[in-house]
Amino acid sequence: MVNTINRRDFIKTTAVAGTATTMAGSLLAYPSQKRVKMAVIGTGLRGQWVLSLAAKYPEVDIPAICDIDETMLAAALKILKEAGKPEPRVYRRGDEDFRRMISTEDLDGVYIATPWHWHHPMAVAAMKNGMQVGTEVPAALTVEECWDLVRTSEQTGMNCMIMENVCYRRDIMAILNMVQQGLFGELLHCQGGYQHDLRHVKFNNGEQAYGGGVEFGEKGFSEARWRTQHSVDRNGDLYPTHGLGPISPMLGINRGNRMVRLTSTASQARGLHQYIVDKGGSEHPNTEVEFKCGDIVTTVIKCANGQSIVLSHDTNNPRPYSLNFRVQGTQGIWQKDARSLYIEGLSDQPHRWEDEAPYLEEFDHPLWQRFEENAVGAGHGGMDYFIVRAMIETFKGAPPVIDVYDAVSMSVVSALSEQSITQGSAPIDIPDFTRGKWRTNVSIFGLSDRL
Amino acid sequence: MVNTINRRDFIKTTAVAGTATTMAGSLLAYPSQKRVKMAVIGTGLRGQWVLSLAAKYPEVDIPAICDIDETMLAAALKILKEAGKPEPRVYRRGDEDFRRMISTEDLDGVYIATPWHWHHPMAVAAMKNGMQVGTEVPAALTVEECWDLVRTSEQTGMNCMIMENVCYRRDIMAILNMVQQGLFGELLHCQGGYQHDLRHVKFNNGEQAYGGGVEFGEKGFSEARWRTQHSVDRNGDLYPTHGLGPISPMLGINRGNRMVRLTSTASQARGLHQYIVDKGGSEHPNTEVEFKCGDIVTTVIKCANGQSIVLSHDTNNPRPYSLNFRVQGTQGIWQKDARSLYIEGLSDQPHRWEDEAPYLEEFDHPLWQRFEENAVGAGHGGMDYFIVRAMIETFKGAPPVIDVYDAVSMSVVSALSEQSITQGSAPIDIPDFTRGKWRTNVSIFGLSDRL
Repeated sequence: MVNTINRRDFIKTTAVAGTATTMAGSLLAYPSQKRVKMAVIGTGLRGQWVLSLAAKYPEVDIPAICDIDETMLAAALKILKEAGKPEPRVYRRGDEDFRRMISTEDLDGVYIATPWHWHHPMAVAAMKNGMQVGTEVPAALTVEECWDLVRTSEQTGMNCMIMENVCYRRDIMAILNMVQQGLFGELLHCQGGYQHDLRHVKFNNGEQAYGGGVEFGEKGFSEARWRTQHSVDRNGDLYPTHGLGPISPMLGINRGNRMVRLTSTASQARGLHQYIVDKGGSEHPNTEVEFKCGDIVTTVIKCANGQSIVLSHDTNNPRPYSLNFRVQGTQGIWQKDARSLYIEGLSDQPHRWEDEAPYLEEFDHPLWQRFEENAVGAGHGGMDYFIVRAMIETFKGAPPVIDVYDAVSMSVVSALSEQSITQGSAPIDIPDFTRGKWRTNVSIFGLSDRL
Repeated sequence: MVNTINRRDFIKTTAVAGTATTMAGSLLAYPSQKRVKMAVIGTGLRGQWVLSLAAKYPEVDIPAICDIDETMLAAALKILKEAGKPEPRVYRRGDEDFRRMISTEDLDGVYIATPWHWHHPMAVAAMKNGMQVGTEVPAALTVEECWDLVRTSEQTGMNCMIMENVCYRRDIMAILNMVQQGLFGELLHCQGGYQHDLRHVKFNNGEQAYGGGVEFGEKGFSEARWRTQHSVDRNGDLYPTHGLGPISPMLGINRGNRMVRLTSTASQARGLHQYIVDKGGSEHPNTEVEFKCGDIVTTVIKCANGQSIVLSHDTNNPRPYSLNFRVQGTQGIWQKDARSLYIEGLSDQPHRWEDEAPYLEEFDHPLWQRFEENAVGAGHGGMDYFIVRAMIETFKGAPPVIDVYDAVSMSVVSALSEQSITQGSAPIDIPDFTRGKWRTNVSIFGLSDRL
């Protein structure tokens, strides 16, 4: 990398007219100290973790929690007690008891960390009762559910934020910073995905969360109880948001740009069956289960402004973890798996990869620089700190840096990729959930050191 | 990586029933010392290089060469003279003079290194005159041309080999070796592509081959004279074979497997225009040229045995060179850009990438070990030595390790990707050029230390 002075000249002369200051003004009030009341639906392992982070804020009251599992509820109560929070009311009377909580409690916001198919009905119920929503990924499972979230949000004026924590990963935010400063030129192509060997998550012995057996469904524990069934029933990109979430603000999705169509292609399904045979033996009853989800699902998305996005979903086989990030423009390219980038005019040697580290340091995002100490130890490399903080600020009424349109445009890819695969990789149109407003909506995410 | 003994146990217990010795017997006669007569059509820079490699074989006679450019012909004649070969007859009377050469000369084989659109008619003419063919990539530009090559080859009994040198890259052959020994388990997904900043190839000053100006077509020199026009006229993966060639034998394409359909998606086209503006100024006449080919073209292919292949074509923007290789199976994964692999049960640390180097060394292909000294300095990291040698052996009558079906199944992807992009990424069926024989054809490439 050339020295800082040259680099600044470079940026000055090549930066595209950006939106770097747009909306930042309206974020000046945050973080605020306003008191806020939130509840948690779903106190499993993820819910407990987010609860523990939210409980650190003195201005956050947590008057109610909701789950159907007494073990998980007990763990959540312990977390709140240790954080010095008053004991919350507990809603535990079955699957639909969240409705009683929502209609009874006076809440600013609800955080949802339940099995995927509950996210949509819970979010809708909360918004209809005048509560802001933070939902774990994905926000919804079908196109109709996505539209329902949008309509409900628009009708109620409540936001449905998706808790896509990877948007706040430190390297991602540095790259976003570089994109916004024009270092990559005009973006052409991005890649992302979810490449994570989840076999020990999808199967366990019914007693521990990770591994130790090949059970799932009723005999499984934690995510294996419900998540694995999606691999039985559905062939598609089941988990697109970790890859797509971080890319979306770089490409201005829903804000000057949008995704117009996709194609998906699945490989054969082998890994989960093989795992059962290897760990449970060829006589285990689960060897009879037929898994519909292809081991590697590749989705290619075309954007209104011309860019292509490649997403990969790859969770059933031995492989190192990687979210497959690549960001490429007319001026340069970043590729995470190689920990490398190349920027024409900046990189010392033409045609040679350069270590990403000095760039990530120099373009470290102001938000990270400001809150680095708070983020340390907050989970998933610190990004959980930021996503929880953004949710709490949204509950207080801050401008939604991740909104319902982001939630559904990230989430709908699953349903559409299933359709495409069923139809032999046919291109499927992606709905414009903003109904044309993407043309004039301005960027907001990552444009200040506030949210 | 665990020690060799453990590794051998691993291979013994996990290797799939392979084809590792099939056909190898019939290759035992090679290399032979049989005399062979070949001609060269196209004595541009690539043709000259291959000519210089072929001229090293004492048993190879080169009685004729053909081109329309006197400068290039003079260079070729010099190469042959310096190699101690007799002066060949020169066919130089215009574009169609190759037909006179083919009908006049007594030849075993013809090597073709002309602009792309000449490969098909020249290959057909040579086969119809009882000559074997080695053609530079791609073998043909349209689906009909591909069928024509197949029909002609079948009718004449002559082979049309494609000179896909990357098939012989040392790391590729080591990975192929590992695939054949079952280290990756059952393959699920492969990636490849052509990611090479060609702006200095597509444009020059008309006097030098690389760069120095923004001219192309009649005002350009070498490849810029004809190659650049393809980026003006066609939107698709213009150059799929460097990525697809090496992957094909790993997946058993045309030999137990085949590619059944593809989708292609192109990004916007920006890089070539930008280059003209940057290097030639905004007043240069070429700024008026509209380039049809998207800067990044992503093609996803589905195979009969279930696997998916992702190819990327990316030649118009600043970026380090990479052929984007990834090979992934039920047991492990190799990813070139990270120079890493992971094999379950072999890699020391679960979920951690491991340096590829010790594996590439241990599984170095027998062919490379045998001919390493010959390959050094033979161009493109030595792989040109092997592809030229394979061509010469084919001209002598050796079993074709890369045949006409390989030539067209690699090449047809360009035409089909153009169709898919024109139709909004619609899935396009890939013809079965073997007409069902892929089911019983056995693997041959890379299965011995002979060819």
